[in-house]
Amino acid sequence: MMKVANAFSRFARGSLLGLLLVLANCAIAEPLPSWNDGPAKQAIVAFVKATTTEGSAQFVSAAERIATFDQDGTLWVEQPAYAQLFYCLSRVPAVVAAKPELAKAEPFKTVMSGERAAMAKLTMNDYLIIAMTTLSGMPTEAFKAEVRDWLAKAHDQRWKKPFTELTYQPMQEVLQYLRDNGYKTYIVTGGGQDFVRVYAEQVYGVPPEQVIGSAGATQYEYDKNGKPQLLKQPKVLLNDNDAGKVENINLMIGRQPRAAFGNSTGDQQMLEYTKAGTGARLSMLVLHDDAVREYAYGPAQGLPNSNIGTFPQALYDQAHKQGWTVISMKNDWKQVFSFAP
Amino acid sequence: MMKVANAFSRFARGSLLGLLLVLANCAIAEPLPSWNDGPAKQAIVAFVKATTTEGSAQFVSAAERIATFDQDGTLWVEQPAYAQLFYCLSRVPAVVAAKPELAKAEPFKTVMSGERAAMAKLTMNDYLIIAMTTLSGMPTEAFKAEVRDWLAKAHDQRWKKPFTELTYQPMQEVLQYLRDNGYKTYIVTGGGQDFVRVYAEQVYGVPPEQVIGSAGATQYEYDKNGKPQLLKQPKVLLNDNDAGKVENINLMIGRQPRAAFGNSTGDQQMLEYTKAGTGARLSMLVLHDDAVREYAYGPAQGLPNSNIGTFPQALYDQAHKQGWTVISMKNDWKQVFSFAP
Repeated sequence: MMKVANAFSRFARGSLLGLLLVLANCAIAEPLPSWNDGPAKQAIVAFVKATTTEGSAQFVSAAERIATFDQDGTLWVEQPAYAQLFYCLSRVPAVVAAKPELAKAEPFKTVMSGERAAMAKLTMNDYLIIAMTTLSGMPTEAFKAEVRDWLAKAHDQRWKKPFTELTYQPMQEVLQYLRDNGYKTYIVTGGGQDFVRVYAEQVYGVPPEQVIGSAGATQYEYDKNGKPQLLKQPKVLLNDNDAGKVENINLMIGRQPRAAFGNSTGDQQMLEYTKAGTGARLSMLVLHDDAVREYAYGPAQGLPNSNIGTFPQALYDQAHKQGWTVISMKNDWKQVFSFAP
Repeated sequence: MMKVANAFSRFARGSLLGLLLVLANCAIAEPLPSWNDGPAKQAIVAFVKATTTEGSAQFVSAAERIATFDQDGTLWVEQPAYAQLFYCLSRVPAVVAAKPELAKAEPFKTVMSGERAAMAKLTMNDYLIIAMTTLSGMPTEAFKAEVRDWLAKAHDQRWKKPFTELTYQPMQEVLQYLRDNGYKTYIVTGGGQDFVRVYAEQVYGVPPEQVIGSAGATQYEYDKNGKPQLLKQPKVLLNDNDAGKVENINLMIGRQPRAAFGNSTGDQQMLEYTKAGTGARLSMLVLHDDAVREYAYGPAQGLPNSNIGTFPQALYDQAHKQGWTVISMKNDWKQVFSFAP
């Protein structure tokens, strides 16, 4: 009996300490510290309170708490070009070494020349050929190892940082704040699903099964030792852009998101589909209007016309008409990166 | 201070009660009560202990605890035909009413005739046409409503029960036992993903995002009120059988399962792929050898040759050679259904 009483006493003290720590933590942890207290932050906090407060008319069950995030330009920097594009270009020499006949074929010849003027003239179709060629032909495990190696060495030109550090601190806080409130956070990217899955867990806290992206087919086969493997095929299975984002959310999740975040026309359908649901819904558009701390493009007109991050006036108008919230990097974010304001 | 002391005392009493309940529950809840204590049950328990005991050489982190289950013949009855096939046949009159030109075209003419002898001669290709026609052409939400209506009314012929009650009690216990030990349980079915997702959460405790199945393409569009919807297309996007199961596990989960359960050649690749991983892996094959309580087919030779649940001697041999565990329904299961031994 003495032992039980002692154990009980220890247990009770431990519990009380735990309770006090929880209370203390709640008092300290103001959500979204890198956000200025404007309409964007208020919209996020109001949405979370409405959908997670028991008894609220807009309460959402834990199972239905789904939030989807575009990646390039929404969670991390996409200028001057997508990180994955730099990866694909970095793989061209190895691909040409393995298939020397490609050295004389376009667009590989231009890439191998390294001439900037010629490179600047490559078309979207050229890039598609480069992506298809550099992202297929190897087992999935070999691909993951190649991406990991590249990520460990590659740096962007402006901040001289690994690409995986160029994530927006305010958006990291939104991911965490939603998860702290029972939301399952998904990345829904036009980028390669296999590519983003390599680092998403470490960089964003998003596990591979919650990364949806453009995906090539794979072929099940056996290696020379008879061990099963999946070979990446040069064939598009899922195009995760525009309407494809909604179609793939249905395919991979099977539920309509409650909240969605994007920054370009490629996210339009995901944002309108999310907002069209019943109850409280949050659709948010990141506007790149901060040429000093990051870039200004789209309606902010700071960059020359580009295929990256297309954000025409029509998208801006739709946001206002349908009640999406526009996030101004310049006005809504106190700090852009963890390492720099 | 008095208030704090009282609150503390209440809290401590509540915690002690909770602790005692947990301890009592652990003592009572022997896992897998519908299983006889044979090699199959022992293999499951040993696998769970090895992979979830901290400090074990085969310990698996929570994030990597993935288990995949075939559905038809593994989680529920698949004889005399898949439940989804009965659903498709039940939809033929409505499809023919909507498109009267089909009434004179095969295989719809035969189905509408209701003649058993003619029906028995329908080929796999006929059934594929019936499936394509009855599972597409409507918005995803309308499809879900149709399936729910059918499930509420349809009964199997032998037990006179709703199909959703024909799940194997021992396998329900495996699903629960794995989840209780931190495993994420997935259904990986050759059946239709959208069909199984309608009831999987309620019947198996598996949410839609953890159901992988054969899937048709969808098309994002707007209804007459301008509301976004997804229209089911008569086009196969994912064939979730054979090697397709592994390819789709990679597509939708991006991790190799630690445990996999199947019952036919359609599960062969999933079982060998799972078993080929490093560390503790569990691959299990359900053998239908109980003609009295359920059915006997495959190597048990109790049923005439059929396209359903194909389980040739070669699969049996592969199981033994590669260390998969065969589950004998007759010997390993104390009880087959929740409502009948």
